[in-house]
This record gives sequence, C-alpha cells and structure tokens, in this order.
Amino acid sequence: MPPSMFFETKQAADVPHPTVSPTAKKQKGEQPVLYSYWRSSCSWRVRIALEMKGIKYDYIAIHLVKDGGQQLTDQHTAVNPLKQVPALVIDGHTICQSTAIIEYLEDTRQAPSLRPSDPAVTARVREICNMIGADTQPVQNLRVLRKVMGMVPEEEKTKTKVEWGKHWINNGFQALEKILEKSAGTYCVGDEITMADLYIPPQVYNAGRFGVDMSQYPIIARIDATVAKLPAFKAAHPSAQPDAQ
Amino acid sequence: MPPSMFFETKQAADVPHPTVSPTAKKQKGEQPVLYSYWRSSCSWRVRIALEMKGIKYDYIAIHLVKDGGQQLTDQHTAVNPLKQVPALVIDGHTICQSTAIIEYLEDTRQAPSLRPSDPAVTARVREICNMIGADTQPVQNLRVLRKVMGMVPEEEKTKTKVEWGKHWINNGFQALEKILEKSAGTYCVGDEITMADLYIPPQVYNAGRFGVDMSQYPIIARIDATVAKLPAFKAAHPSAQPDAQ
Repeated sequence: MPPSMFFETKQAADVPHPTVSPTAKKQKGEQPVLYSYWRSSCSWRVRIALEMKGIKYDYIAIHLVKDGGQQLTDQHTAVNPLKQVPALVIDGHTICQSTAIIEYLEDTRQAPSLRPSDPAVTARVREICNMIGADTQPVQNLRVLRKVMGMVPEEEKTKTKVEWGKHWINNGFQALEKILEKSAGTYCVGDEITMADLYIPPQVYNAGRFGVDMSQYPIIARIDATVAKLPAFKAAHPSAQPDAQ
Repeated sequence: MPPSMFFETKQAADVPHPTVSPTAKKQKGEQPVLYSYWRSSCSWRVRIALEMKGIKYDYIAIHLVKDGGQQLTDQHTAVNPLKQVPALVIDGHTICQSTAIIEYLEDTRQAPSLRPSDPAVTARVREICNMIGADTQPVQNLRVLRKVMGMVPEEEKTKTKVEWGKHWINNGFQALEKILEKSAGTYCVGDEITMADLYIPPQVYNAGRFGVDMSQYPIIARIDATVAKLPAFKAAHPSAQPDAQ
C-alpha cells in the first residue's frame, strides 16, 4: 500500500489541540493517542477496548459542543476528515470509526480476546455490535438530533428531540433484547466478554438521557449493571475522563 | 455456546414465505438461503459478497413495502427478530446485519479474500464500510424517512424526504471522498477489491434516487463505474433479482 494511504501521524500529533491532557503533552508519540469526548458513545466503546486490553494511551479531548463543535475545526479535520471522534493514533496510523478501531485492536493485540474463536459466535457478536453501532446510535446522535430539531419551531425542539431519541433507542433495544434472549449468558454472547458488551453501556447511558424505561429490557439492563462493576469499564466511563463536566 | 444461541435454521426454512424463487423451492436446505429485497442496500452488499466468493444461494424475497412491509410479519420475525433484510441462513445458522454476514463469509470462506492481510489496511477498509454502513445508510433508510415524513404536512412530505436523504448522503460522501483521496487505487483501498467496495454501489444508487450531484465525488463515481463492469457486481444488482420491479 502507498505510505500516503494513512493520514500522517506526525501531522496529527503536531496539530495543537484545544484541550490536551498533561499526560498527552508529556508522552506524545510514545503511546497511542485517542481523540475523544467524554460523553461520545463511540469514544467510550474504544476506551473500554483499550482498557480491556491494558493499552496505555494519551487522551486528547475534542469538545463536541464548545466553540460550535471542536470536531469541525480545520485542525481536527487534519487528524480526522470525518470531523468526528474518536480517532486513534496507533502504530503510525490514524484510525477512525469505533468499530474499525476495535477490530484493529483485536487483529493486532489478541489478549484478552474480545472476538470468540468460533466464527459463528463472532457473527452473533458482530450482529449485536451493528444493531447498536449502525441501526441505533447513528440515528439518535447529536448531528441527527440537531437536524430533527431544525425541522420544528423553537417551543417544540426539546419535546421532539426526546421523542426522537426514545423512539430509536426503543426500536433498537426491542430487537436487541430478543437477540439476547438466545445469546446471553453473563454477558451479551455467552459467559465471556466480547466486543458486543462494549456497545452496551454507552447506549444504556443514552437511553437514560432520553428517559427510556429500561424495565422493558431486563437482559440489557442486567448486562449493563454487570459490566459496570469491571475495572476496565469503570476506567472508560465518561465521569472518569479528564474532560468530564 | 448453547445450541439455542442461534434461531433454528429448520424453523427459518419451514416458515412459508410470500415470494420464493423456483430455485429456492427446489434446493431448499441444500445451500445458503438469503432473505433479500431487490433494492435494499444491505441485501445488495451481501449479494455482492456471495457472488464474489462464488457461493450459490437460494433467494427468498421479502417485500419491504407490500402488505405494509413483509419484514414486519410474524413469519419473517421468526427468521429475523430484527424485522429487516438481509438474513442469511448458512452452515446451520441464521445471521443478520450485512456487516456481520460479510465478515462471517470472510472468516469461513477466505478465497477470494475481501479483507487485506495487513491489519492496518483492513482498518482503513472497515472505516469505509462503517462510514457508509453506520454513518450514512442507516440515517437515510426507509424507516427513518417514514419517521421524518411523519413530522411534516402531506404537501411537504416528498420535498422533506428528498432534502433529508440528500443531506445525509452528501454528508457521508464528502468525508468518504476525502478518505478515498488517500486510500484509493483502482478500488476503494488500493488495487484489490475489498469489503469496502461492496458498500459503494448501493449508496451511489441511493444517491441517484435522491438527486445527489455525483460530479462532486469523482473518486466515488469512478469506483462505482469500475465495479459495475464486474460479473459479481452485475449479478448482485437489484435489476437482476427475481423480485425486481
């Protein structure tokens, strides 16, 4: 592949960013760098994967709301042309899209594995990842909510936003709960943690923000409570991030 | 894993379906069965993967509009609790979600490979898959369009639908074109076909339906034209399906 295929890591690391943790400044280039926002679902999933695999990383906060959205600035677009978080600078490459990052970590740092050895079981795992990561979260994220709110008068914006978020999360969780009835053990697929479990806490957190009644989804709620006790999931929680508000 | 983890193939195969191709009736159970809709983006991607890998399969058509949506019926929900197409019955399992299906085919039937051997290149491939499969298509698909149209009066429905679809496809294609400037050779990532290329034709087809000006995206348009000439892509095209209208 041409060396130009990936956006230059050097460029990414050299671009000054609005919020850089002291660790990031000190150890720049020495370990992976995650461009993240404390409350971003996709950043959160990646943080869990990094913590699960014991990968130390530097944290660069990109505020999705402040300054009209720091992800939209030229300096962040130079790192991530998708104008999003997360982006992970690792092994000399900048990788965007949470699912691509998590699969890359799995491809290059197998232990502990989050992808079962049986491909049919992994298919079930990926199905769950996509039910949340493609069918649910992208339809209720900030950029879509903003667009939807733009369609209604001022006084209806909040009600419309909440109704929209609730609708799509209920839609996704109804299907997911049915899948989990068959697949879940202690975790989403059997009794071992897999990639699928990384997608649960951020989506349940969003469900809480939109007032979704989680008593309708006892398996999802139980798995969320179970993983919340694990050190990797605690370390990856929004409230534990340097940019938490 | 418990045998109950997957929905029973037998059940799936035994449920009568509204449209079954003669081939499906004749060879039911002997080869993989794809539940598909001719114009569904996700079904289309899976058809390309099956054709690329030379996997013969039976086709069961699920009409997403007729009868209020055949994907919502009890009989289809028994096959796919996600109430969607595609679903692929293969190796005794029913797998849903196009990305999970394509990765499973790659895990179990490597040749010809659609996933590069270098994990960093595969990360770029999966990034592109997700830019379309998570960030673009799910936000402009039928169920979301219906919800958006429900927010406006009758006389504004068509205009709102077109504006919504165009907005999200432009949004996705602007980012994708930038990524492809770095990654593309003959195809999305270098000169070999990868999983990423499977996501291009359905999204460009949708772009056409919403009147997106493709001259803004010369690389995407070129790749779409290139793959359109390949036999596997021709065989997987909506117009070549038994339920094409």
